Amino acid sequence: MLKRTVTCGELRAKDKDREVVLSGWVASWRDHGGVIFIDLRDISGLTQIVFGREKSGLDKGKEEELIKQAQKLRNEFVIAVKGVVSARPEGTENKKIDTGDIEVIVTEMELLNKCRELPFDFKKMDEVGEETRLKYRYLEMRVGKLKDNLVFKHKLFQVTRNYFSGKGFYEIETPFLTRATPEGARDYLVPSRVNPGKFYALPQSPQLFKQMLMVGGFMRYFQIVKCFRDEDLRQDRQPEFTQLDLEMSFIDEADIKAVLEEYVCSVFDKLMGVKVSRPFPSLSYDQAMLRYGTDKPDLRIPAEITDISDLALSCGFKVFSDAAGKGVVRGLKISDADRISLSVINEVTKEVQQLGAKGLAWIRHKEEGLTSQITKFFKPEELEELSRRFKTIKGDLLFFVADSADTVSKCLSFLRTRFYEPRKDKYALLWVEDYPLFEKDAETGRWSPMHHPFTSPAPGDIEALRSGKDEDIARVKSRAYDMVLNGSEIGGGSIRNHSLEVQDLVFRILGIDEKESREKFGFLLKALSYGAPPHGGFAFGMDRLVAQLLNLESIREVIPFPKTQKAYSPITDAPSAVDRKQLDELFIKVDVPEDLT
Amino acid sequence: MLKRTVTCGELRAKDKDREVVLSGWVASWRDHGGVIFIDLRDISGLTQIVFGREKSGLDKGKEEELIKQAQKLRNEFVIAVKGVVSARPEGTENKKIDTGDIEVIVTEMELLNKCRELPFDFKKMDEVGEETRLKYRYLEMRVGKLKDNLVFKHKLFQVTRNYFSGKGFYEIETPFLTRATPEGARDYLVPSRVNPGKFYALPQSPQLFKQMLMVGGFMRYFQIVKCFRDEDLRQDRQPEFTQLDLEMSFIDEADIKAVLEEYVCSVFDKLMGVKVSRPFPSLSYDQAMLRYGTDKPDLRIPAEITDISDLALSCGFKVFSDAAGKGVVRGLKISDADRISLSVINEVTKEVQQLGAKGLAWIRHKEEGLTSQITKFFKPEELEELSRRFKTIKGDLLFFVADSADTVSKCLSFLRTRFYEPRKDKYALLWVEDYPLFEKDAETGRWSPMHHPFTSPAPGDIEALRSGKDEDIARVKSRAYDMVLNGSEIGGGSIRNHSLEVQDLVFRILGIDEKESREKFGFLLKALSYGAPPHGGFAFGMDRLVAQLLNLESIREVIPFPKTQKAYSPITDAPSAVDRKQLDELFIKVDVPEDLT
Repeated sequence: MLKRTVTCGELRAKDKDREVVLSGWVASWRDHGGVIFIDLRDISGLTQIVFGREKSGLDKGKEEELIKQAQKLRNEFVIAVKGVVSARPEGTENKKIDTGDIEVIVTEMELLNKCRELPFDFKKMDEVGEETRLKYRYLEMRVGKLKDNLVFKHKLFQVTRNYFSGKGFYEIETPFLTRATPEGARDYLVPSRVNPGKFYALPQSPQLFKQMLMVGGFMRYFQIVKCFRDEDLRQDRQPEFTQLDLEMSFIDEADIKAVLEEYVCSVFDKLMGVKVSRPFPSLSYDQAMLRYGTDKPDLRIPAEITDISDLALSCGFKVFSDAAGKGVVRGLKISDADRISLSVINEVTKEVQQLGAKGLAWIRHKEEGLTSQITKFFKPEELEELSRRFKTIKGDLLFFVADSADTVSKCLSFLRTRFYEPRKDKYALLWVEDYPLFEKDAETGRWSPMHHPFTSPAPGDIEALRSGKDEDIARVKSRAYDMVLNGSEIGGGSIRNHSLEVQDLVFRILGIDEKESREKFGFLLKALSYGAPPHGGFAFGMDRLVAQLLNLESIREVIPFPKTQKAYSPITDAPSAVDRKQLDELFIKVDVPEDLT
Repeated sequence: MLKRTVTCGELRAKDKDREVVLSGWVASWRDHGGVIFIDLRDISGLTQIVFGREKSGLDKGKEEELIKQAQKLRNEFVIAVKGVVSARPEGTENKKIDTGDIEVIVTEMELLNKCRELPFDFKKMDEVGEETRLKYRYLEMRVGKLKDNLVFKHKLFQVTRNYFSGKGFYEIETPFLTRATPEGARDYLVPSRVNPGKFYALPQSPQLFKQMLMVGGFMRYFQIVKCFRDEDLRQDRQPEFTQLDLEMSFIDEADIKAVLEEYVCSVFDKLMGVKVSRPFPSLSYDQAMLRYGTDKPDLRIPAEITDISDLALSCGFKVFSDAAGKGVVRGLKISDADRISLSVINEVTKEVQQLGAKGLAWIRHKEEGLTSQITKFFKPEELEELSRRFKTIKGDLLFFVADSADTVSKCLSFLRTRFYEPRKDKYALLWVEDYPLFEKDAETGRWSPMHHPFTSPAPGDIEALRSGKDEDIARVKSRAYDMVLNGSEIGGGSIRNHSLEVQDLVFRILGIDEKESREKFGFLLKALSYGAPPHGGFAFGMDRLVAQLLNLESIREVIPFPKTQKAYSPITDAPSAVDRKQLDELFIKVDVPEDLT
C-alpha cells in the first residue's frame, strides 16, 4: 500500500517540487480531453491531483496506463497517489481552498476501495431527509457541517477535561449498571441473567454516586458521562445524552459558580474566540418570571415585561380591572413597531390564545400619543402613567395580557421571542437562582421537588420546612442554580443535603416515608450518616451546550449516531427483536398486546 | 460556614504564624490532660490541630468552650477549624508526614457533620472482607490504597487523552443503546418501551461504530469508553469495564504499533518515572507458544522452553519416544535448583497432572553430570546432547512434559511462573502477532475467529482463504496484534477487512451465510461498500492496565464501585426487583423457574 506522507489539506506553494503520497476520497472528477483532474478529499481538506499533465516525466506507456486507471475512478472511490507538487498554471488557482495554489502531478496510483452508487448527492445534502442522513451517517460525516460539529465537540471535551483536571478535580467513573432511582423520568432497565428476576437500571445521572464520592473524601470530582432517560421524545431529546458532571465539597454556591464561570469563559475564549465577562448576571427565579415570563430568558432580547396590575385594578377598562382582581395584568413594549401591521397583530392574538390567553390588548404610541381601540376606556392620566411606566416613544407598541400569572408569563415570554430575532454572534449568559424547593402537582396535590430530592433548602427556610404547613412549604427556597445561555438551560446544579435530618424532612414532605426512602436510596442515606461533608455540584448538558454554541437547531446535529424521535437508530436498526433463547437465559418473556404488534 | 483556605496536606514550617482555615475528617483524637490533639484529614494529607494550647491567645472562657466542643468529637466527624500555624514543640515533630513540622492552634471550630459508629477499624482495613469494603466503599476511599489507585487512574486518563488528542485523534462518542452483535460474549439487553417487544443491546465494544467512523472519513478516532459483557465472572472480570478504544485509517500494522508504543512509553515516563525502550520486542504466536507455552508470556522470567521431540523420538525412554510420535516432548530449565527438594517436585508433579499432564519427568545437573531416575534410559551421547541443548550447568534442574502440544505448553508455562518470582519493579512489554485467523471449536467442529470476525487475514493468505479447505483455513494468519505487559494481555487490535469481498469470505468460513450476516451486521457491510478506507485499530483494557502498572491482584481495586463475582453491587444492592408496572410498560414479564426463586 502506498503510504500517505501528507494530508489533503496541508500542501502550499512552498511545497513545490516535493514528492508526496496522498490518500483519500475522490470528491470530484473532470476529464479535460485526456487530462484528468480529481479533487482528493480527506478530513483535513482537498487537494487537486492531475493525471496526464506532460510534466509528470513518465514514459508514454506508463502515462497512458495511469490515465486509463484514472478514467475508471468515480466519486467516493478511495485511492492513494504518489506525485510531485506543482504550481497551478497561472489563472487557474482556486482561492476558495487553502491548497488552491498547487496541484499534484500523479506518477503512481493505487485503488484502495470502490464505492457503490451514492444514495444522495453530496452537494445537495440540505435537501436530504433526516432519516436518510441518519441511515448513511458515515457519508454525511465525510463532508460538511456534521464533521465540523463533531470536531468542535471533540475540542470542547479536551478543553473541559484539561480545565477541571487542572483545577484539582478528579475524573472518577461511576457505574452504568446500577439501581433504579427516582429522578423524574423513567429508567432504562437491564435484566440480570445471574440474578434471575432482577434488573439493573441505566443511570439518569451519576447523582448518588458523586455524592458518595464526596462522602469518600474526593473533594472535587468531574466526569463527561453518558446518561439515560426513557422519556417520550416529543422535544429535542435523546434516550442517551452526554453530561459534564461535577461535584465539590466544603464549598458553597459562590465557590461553584466561580469555577463554572471561569470554565465557561475559557471555553468561549479558546473555542469561539469570544471574551465573556464575569461574574455572569444573576436573577432570582421570581424576578426572571416577572421580568421575562420564563426561568430561561434570552437576555439578548432587550424587551422586559412590566407589571401594571395596580394600575389595571382601578382603570375603566373592565377586562383589565376584572383580571387584576383575580390574577395579573402585564405588558411588553416592542420598539420600532410600525413594521407590525394590524394583520400581524391579529395573527399574534391567535397565537397567544393558543397559549391560553383570552385575548391580547395593544396600544400604539403614535404622533398623537397612546392610541388604540381600548384607549377610550382609560383616563388621560392613566394613559400618561402607562406611557411613563413603559417609557414609550413614538413607534412603540405595547402588548397586554390579563390572566393568571402563569398564562401571562407564558404569553409575554412568547411575544418577546416572537418579535425579536437575537443576533447569532452574541451570547448572553446568566444564572437563575432561588428556585422554590417544591412545586405542587396540580393533579395529585402532592409536593414534588422542583430540581431533585437531594437539593438543599435555603438555610433560613429550614424552620418553614419543619412546620409542614402547605403555605410554609410553598415559600421554601432551594439552593439550586441553573445556567442559561441564549434562552436555553445549559446546566443546573445545587448544594445538596449533607444533613440526614434535613434530607429526611424533605422526603417526608415529598410523601416518601422512611421505609420507602430506605428502600429506594438507603445507600445514599447511609453514606450521609458516615461523615458527609457539605457539598454541591453541577451538570452541563454537553449536547445542548454544543448545539447552543454552534447555533444548531437540534442536538441530533452534534451526536454522531443519534436516534429518531421513536428512539430508533436508522443506521443499526436498533432496537431489534432478539432470539427466544436469549430471553430465556434472562428469565423474561415478551408480552406485547396484539393491537401493538 | 468556615471556608477552607488551605488543604490538610500543604502547610510547612515556612507557613508559621499564618491564620488558616482547614476542613476535613477527624482521623485521630487524643486528649493529653486538657490539650486535645486531632489529626485532621482530607484527600491531600493530614494536619495536626490542637485545642487548649496556651498560645491560642483566646480568653479563658472561650478556650474552655472550644475544648468542650473538641471533647465531643469522634473519629470521622467532619469539622472546619480556624487557627494559626505554629512550629511543633522541639522533639515532637513527625517526620512521617509532610506537615509533621507544624501544628495549627485552633481558635474557632465548626462541626459540619457527625459520623456514626464505623463498621470497621480504618487501621485494620486489610483484615476487612471484600464484600464489606465494597458495601462501605466511601469509607475505604477516604484512606489508603483505593484512593491512590483511583487518583492514578485519573492521571492515566488525562495523559491518555492528551496524548491521542495531540496526535490528531478525534474523541467521538459511540452509542450505548445499540444493536446486539456477536462478539464472543453475551450481550446485556435493554427492553424498549417505545418499540414494544424489541431490545437494545449494550455494546461489548464500539467496534462496528469505529469502523463506520473510518468510513466516515475520521482518520484517527479514540475514546475512553465503558463496554459491557454478560459473562460468567469466574475470572477477574466485571460486567462493565473501561476500554481505551482507537482506530486509524490509511495505515498498516507498523503505523499503529509506532503510535501505541510511543503512548505506552509516555505513560511509563509520566506516571511511573520509568523509561521503556522502543521498539518493543515482538513474537509470532507460534514462537510465543513454542518458547513460553503461552501467547501472553511474562518476559521478566528468563526461562525458555526447549523442544526435544526429535531427540525423544529415538531415545530409549519409552514414555518420551511414544509421546514424541503422537505429540511433543519439551523441557524447561530451572537454574539454581538445589533449593527445589524432591518433595516440592512431587508437589509440582501433582499440579501439572491437574493441568492434564500424565506426569513430570526431571533431571538434575549434579557434580557428576545429568542424573535422575530416568537417566538410565538414555545413552550417554543422548544425555550429552540434552545438556548441550539446555546449556546446563551444575545446579540446573530440567523438567520435561511429553504430551499434546497444548498440554505441554500449558504445563511448562505454568512451571515458568511456578519457580520464578518476577521483580515487581520491572516491566516487560512485547507484541504477539501472526495469530491464526481462525480456530476450530473442538465440540462443534466449526471455525470461529481467534480475535473477531472483522480481522483481516494476512495478504498472502487470501488464496488459502478462498480455497475453503480445512488444512488451508487452519494456516491462514491474521493481521491481529496483542500487547502483553508482564504476562498479562493489556490490549489487542488488528487491521480490519475493508474489502467487502474478503469480509464475505470470512463470514462464509465462519458458517454465517449471506442472510445472517446481512441481518446481524448488514449496516457495517453496507458501510464497507461505500468507500471504506484501509483501517485498523486497537483497544486497551484500562482497568487491567492500571492493575498491572500498580501490581494489583484484581481489577476491582481500580474500579470505584465494582460488582462482585455474582454481578452484584453490595453498595446499591443492584440488581433489584422492580415494580410490575414498570415491566408492563416495557411489555415484558419475569419468568423465573421455581427452583431458582
